[in-house]
Amino acid sequence: MTGPVTVRSVGALRAQTGQWRETGATVALVPTMGALHDGHLSLVHKANELADRVVVSIFVNPRQFGPGEDYAAYPRDEAVDAENLAAVGADALYAPTVAEMYPDGFATTVHVGGLTDDLCGAARPGHFDGVATVVSKLLLQARPDVAVFGEKDYQQLLVIRRLVRDLDILVSIVGAPVVREPDGLALSSRNTYLTADQRRAAPALYKALCRASVRLEAGEGAAGVLAAARDEVVAAGFDAVDYLTLRDAATLAPLDAADRPARLLAAAHLGGARLIDNVPVAPAGEGAC
Amino acid sequence: MTGPVTVRSVGALRAQTGQWRETGATVALVPTMGALHDGHLSLVHKANELADRVVVSIFVNPRQFGPGEDYAAYPRDEAVDAENLAAVGADALYAPTVAEMYPDGFATTVHVGGLTDDLCGAARPGHFDGVATVVSKLLLQARPDVAVFGEKDYQQLLVIRRLVRDLDILVSIVGAPVVREPDGLALSSRNTYLTADQRRAAPALYKALCRASVRLEAGEGAAGVLAAARDEVVAAGFDAVDYLTLRDAATLAPLDAADRPARLLAAAHLGGARLIDNVPVAPAGEGAC
Repeated sequence: MTGPVTVRSVGALRAQTGQWRETGATVALVPTMGALHDGHLSLVHKANELADRVVVSIFVNPRQFGPGEDYAAYPRDEAVDAENLAAVGADALYAPTVAEMYPDGFATTVHVGGLTDDLCGAARPGHFDGVATVVSKLLLQARPDVAVFGEKDYQQLLVIRRLVRDLDILVSIVGAPVVREPDGLALSSRNTYLTADQRRAAPALYKALCRASVRLEAGEGAAGVLAAARDEVVAAGFDAVDYLTLRDAATLAPLDAADRPARLLAAAHLGGARLIDNVPVAPAGEGAC
Repeated sequence: MTGPVTVRSVGALRAQTGQWRETGATVALVPTMGALHDGHLSLVHKANELADRVVVSIFVNPRQFGPGEDYAAYPRDEAVDAENLAAVGADALYAPTVAEMYPDGFATTVHVGGLTDDLCGAARPGHFDGVATVVSKLLLQARPDVAVFGEKDYQQLLVIRRLVRDLDILVSIVGAPVVREPDGLALSSRNTYLTADQRRAAPALYKALCRASVRLEAGEGAAGVLAAARDEVVAAGFDAVDYLTLRDAATLAPLDAADRPARLLAAAHLGGARLIDNVPVAPAGEGAC
């Protein structure tokens, strides 16, 4: 089993993708921050279905972390990541340094309005500017035919679709479903922050979303359903709920009822971890959980 | 003489440039707001030297005009522009509508920090966000090998170089010198706003910059030289000087003396027109005026 080629500069990345393109191959990009789990690897599988060659980027992007957040603590293990990528057939690992991505004098920000005003945008000021800027750069560096992102970061996925459309970046954006532990907890690199007790409590977030989704699909109003779900999450041991809310699946506008394609989204703190999750809510009563 | 092909959508533009690329041709883009004069046409000549095919875009970009500015009054005459472009051998005229550039739901802004904080950025809040966003879009729509911009908008040229580097847009940015009337007035689509009397006064701006440049290159300090130049401009009949300042040619940092490659930049109001101009200042005493 040969591992992916590792490249660390924009020049080396473009040389590699240029070689592939000369043979007529299509290229997919899977942007990640490393600490790869089966959720990330499912994105690589999807990318392999969609293109001839797959580049996985690993870059813990300082610009999407706030001052009090876990940039320094965020898990990093490139050697293990490279082994995992070899096992799923990624062709290249692009792991630029911070200086390669943000050289001296760097001064440009991509801002997506509207979509980023609340939810994780309200809880993490500047976060989506950091995401939008780094994703724009990665897409323009690699110039892939397709890029694959997880629905786990649902608001982020909508922000990326928006900026790609608005800036006319020539790439298809594909979302892939959340991958979960057997008990329902969404896979996340931040789950490693949980103690054993917290880990046992953590699936309550998904379970509360599922119960709420079923009630909303049955036609109940959002106010009571969401209040009950928040109570469940706190009762299970979460410290605070940043948000647990019903939104239009495309615009993230708040909804009073699931009268159109909708999404239930939540963020909640459990010990040192801030966990996020989301589930679809179908207006016609097609259950998702 | 066949005129340029006119395209009005991103799809039609990409179809045209794609056809050219299949034959191995390189493509240059010259972004303009129309009302083309010899300054613009000099950019097309330069583009013709640099690439096999030249696209000139004409788009009066609402996002770079402030609330009290001349968006509605800005001169527009596409038929005359197309004739002028035919005469200089442009291959395509890309003239998208506002709805094509900013469809419903558009929400993304490209912001370049630092360089845009003062000069025209201070006088025209939001102007450079509008410029950076539309130029990013035009570059990503046309995907040219090279794009040509006038040094007349010197601060804009630096902003564009910065965003192209920062966002990793794969294009060469080329600046072309200011084109002037025989009496020194920089060509500008806004010169049509001047009355006959104002038109006679207008070259004073360039003359003041030239005299100041000579004195700075001889080693005089900036404070006295710039004050004298401002007085000259006002004495010639200008209503107000927005700025007349000596800056580092690469960073636009203010300078007390021309001790490195520098630029003298000015903006001043004359009747209903706000005129801008700039000249290089060489540290070694190589006169530019």
